[in-house]
Amino acid sequence: MSPPPNEDRPIAALLVPDLLSLLDEDAPSVAVETEEMHPRDLADVAEAMPEERVVALLAALPPERAADVLEYLDEELRTAVLEQMTARQAATIVSEMTPDDRADVLDELEEEHADDILQQIPAEERRITEQLLAYEPDSAGGLMTTEFVSVPETVTAEEALRQVRLAARSGRREAMYAIYTTDRLGRLAGVLSLRELLAAPEGALVSDLAWEEVVQVPATADREEVAHMTSEYDLVALPVVDDQNRLLGVITVDDVIDAIQDEATEDVQKMGGMEALEAPYFQTGFWEIARKRGGWLLLLFFAEMLTITVLHGFEEKLQTVIALAAFIPLITSSGGNSGSQSATLITRALAVGDVELADAIRVVLRELGQGALLGSFLGLIGIGAALALGNPVAVGLVIGSTLLCVVIAGTIIGAFLPLIFTRIGVDPAIASSPFVASLVDVSGILLYVNIATLLLRL
Amino acid sequence: MSPPPNEDRPIAALLVPDLLSLLDEDAPSVAVETEEMHPRDLADVAEAMPEERVVALLAALPPERAADVLEYLDEELRTAVLEQMTARQAATIVSEMTPDDRADVLDELEEEHADDILQQIPAEERRITEQLLAYEPDSAGGLMTTEFVSVPETVTAEEALRQVRLAARSGRREAMYAIYTTDRLGRLAGVLSLRELLAAPEGALVSDLAWEEVVQVPATADREEVAHMTSEYDLVALPVVDDQNRLLGVITVDDVIDAIQDEATEDVQKMGGMEALEAPYFQTGFWEIARKRGGWLLLLFFAEMLTITVLHGFEEKLQTVIALAAFIPLITSSGGNSGSQSATLITRALAVGDVELADAIRVVLRELGQGALLGSFLGLIGIGAALALGNPVAVGLVIGSTLLCVVIAGTIIGAFLPLIFTRIGVDPAIASSPFVASLVDVSGILLYVNIATLLLRL
Repeated sequence: MSPPPNEDRPIAALLVPDLLSLLDEDAPSVAVETEEMHPRDLADVAEAMPEERVVALLAALPPERAADVLEYLDEELRTAVLEQMTARQAATIVSEMTPDDRADVLDELEEEHADDILQQIPAEERRITEQLLAYEPDSAGGLMTTEFVSVPETVTAEEALRQVRLAARSGRREAMYAIYTTDRLGRLAGVLSLRELLAAPEGALVSDLAWEEVVQVPATADREEVAHMTSEYDLVALPVVDDQNRLLGVITVDDVIDAIQDEATEDVQKMGGMEALEAPYFQTGFWEIARKRGGWLLLLFFAEMLTITVLHGFEEKLQTVIALAAFIPLITSSGGNSGSQSATLITRALAVGDVELADAIRVVLRELGQGALLGSFLGLIGIGAALALGNPVAVGLVIGSTLLCVVIAGTIIGAFLPLIFTRIGVDPAIASSPFVASLVDVSGILLYVNIATLLLRL
Repeated sequence: MSPPPNEDRPIAALLVPDLLSLLDEDAPSVAVETEEMHPRDLADVAEAMPEERVVALLAALPPERAADVLEYLDEELRTAVLEQMTARQAATIVSEMTPDDRADVLDELEEEHADDILQQIPAEERRITEQLLAYEPDSAGGLMTTEFVSVPETVTAEEALRQVRLAARSGRREAMYAIYTTDRLGRLAGVLSLRELLAAPEGALVSDLAWEEVVQVPATADREEVAHMTSEYDLVALPVVDDQNRLLGVITVDDVIDAIQDEATEDVQKMGGMEALEAPYFQTGFWEIARKRGGWLLLLFFAEMLTITVLHGFEEKLQTVIALAAFIPLITSSGGNSGSQSATLITRALAVGDVELADAIRVVLRELGQGALLGSFLGLIGIGAALALGNPVAVGLVIGSTLLCVVIAGTIIGAFLPLIFTRIGVDPAIASSPFVASLVDVSGILLYVNIATLLLRL
């Protein structure tokens, strides 16, 4: 049976009363009753339960199963649940997680509580977890797991397969769909897929089967690069190496997918004119959101104040041709809209690698062409609208030529900003629609005032 | 050695002269010389070569290797190369692709040419390819491959592993990291990972190992649902079933990643206020882009014309308090910026499933709170700016209260639109920043004119 779609989870909610009474009456049977459920679905049920009962539910499951469910819980609920457990209880469960997930979970907790739990974890696993916690969460080091299969390049395919089966039976969740080979100094020498290993003829050496050119990243690589490499090369796992080319860990494709989704969300939020949130909408506090929006709003507000200065100096002239005032919003918005189209196109093309810095001149010329074409189009309609409202031809010409110029200004500013930001090493996504629109507003008003002064001899 | 990053490919360009002279002098050795390269990198080299030499390069490679390289070529170059080949030559290469990639490649060609190639493909593969071509490219059916491993639920784990190894050795690229079990009517009964199969104890039956609740989608499911399911459940493959619950195919994770990237690009472009492009920026024609931008620009332009009408009727009053004109861009942009923040937040949260339709009231109340807070903040600064420019207190109050109201209007409109679009089954991404900004401009000007008339007794 297909699990319920994520949009609405009526089935999860329906199961809650049954599970709660089973927990009361016969807790040990909960594990058996739920064993066929995907942990993601069981986590959905847990999220519909009172918080303190989630602790009881996890206690009733075998630790490795509890670890799976814990991984899928909302961050907020997960933190709350772990805080209600003793450090020993929590350690039993998080010990069963893969090292990367364990580090992620502990990273969310208050440091003191995380330390308490860490003290209860076996020494070797504690050491690995602490190493992973030292990496930036959004770097390759922060995304990788340290449990993977690597074999010396001198072994046979049969021996490698034996080690893969051993790893599969170990109970740990080692990344094993890509198998790495190492030279005698322990450096990464090659890679082969589990499929290639299974297809190997009798007696073959892994060194004959492995690909020597391994797609790899340093631990400091950004998640955008991780996403890019994985999708360009269609990988199931991406190896992470140190500066001696020794294998530190492996990033599995499910974490890459999460990274891609998070990266796109971050870009979209920046492009909407705010600082990116670090958690989902409802899990981010009201004041946190206000702060992340307020900063940008204020900056844009001050930039926009330049239009007041320009228009303030133009007031007397404006009073003599008051009809010009009515067109102010049309002019600023036309520039803003075409600018935001250009900025969005170029920013996204840069993010997915369709456009590179070397293409800058080609991009700007292309957008200049778009601006000239779309601007002439809107300009002609603008003249028509001005004349239809009974304005003299000269006013119509002012409106039309300002629209042409402001749309060109919009496309050029919109195309240039993401390229410039990329060049100076700033995320081009901050060249957001509101940011571009505000810059174009100022240039639009300047153009308007000057074109009007010139053509109307004010 | 790490392959060159995608941003700039100096190594690819450096290899071109060597490869070209090797092709002239000793074409058969090209296959051996390049055999350790990832096909993605060889495709990069091909893209830096003259078009007609790419045909020679592909002819010099074994067909399955040529198929790999062809898959990674730019769509434009791939189409050009296939058009230069005879139908038989092209068929030899595309026959080696997985059915889903083969269908994608043929879908890009002109129908007549695709048909010629299809006629040269073995009958059984032709039939499958034609079936896949019948699905929408962005649906689950259009993304799936038909080569996967499924076994009757009654077999032993050993027998299943034997079949997996057979598949691995077949030369076909079957999806095999998830193995599906079927009941005696051929319906999907369970799933187990290759890891679980490798870990199986001697003599176990697959029915004991398999998970009975299989996450699955119908062939008509949209790629957004495919992406959502795969990332929620951390799958390496997603099975596609017909209405009898029979397995039609499997979507592999590399195709899911591409789908996620394409879906995010589409959303970002819509949110930038234009129709989504169907191909990368430079591969989309100038007129095609102009058309996709022009339509929205024109629509927004006409919407914005309402501001002319409102301001036109206010001209006489505006002439008496001309200072009000200078604040028009500040007022419209403040509403537009806060509205575009709200629209972006809610649209993205809906796309990734953080917010659902059932949360509508909670969302709107939250955004109302944000609007009141951020609006008061900007309103106070606005009053200060107005007074600083020497305006009377009454004018300052008009500016301040209009800013408060327009920011609230922005957040409400920005939050409501994506929810309403979702409710009526329209992609919420069209509630773009420019779209919201234009709607808010009109309400902003209306508010401004009315508040000024009221407070200044005009």
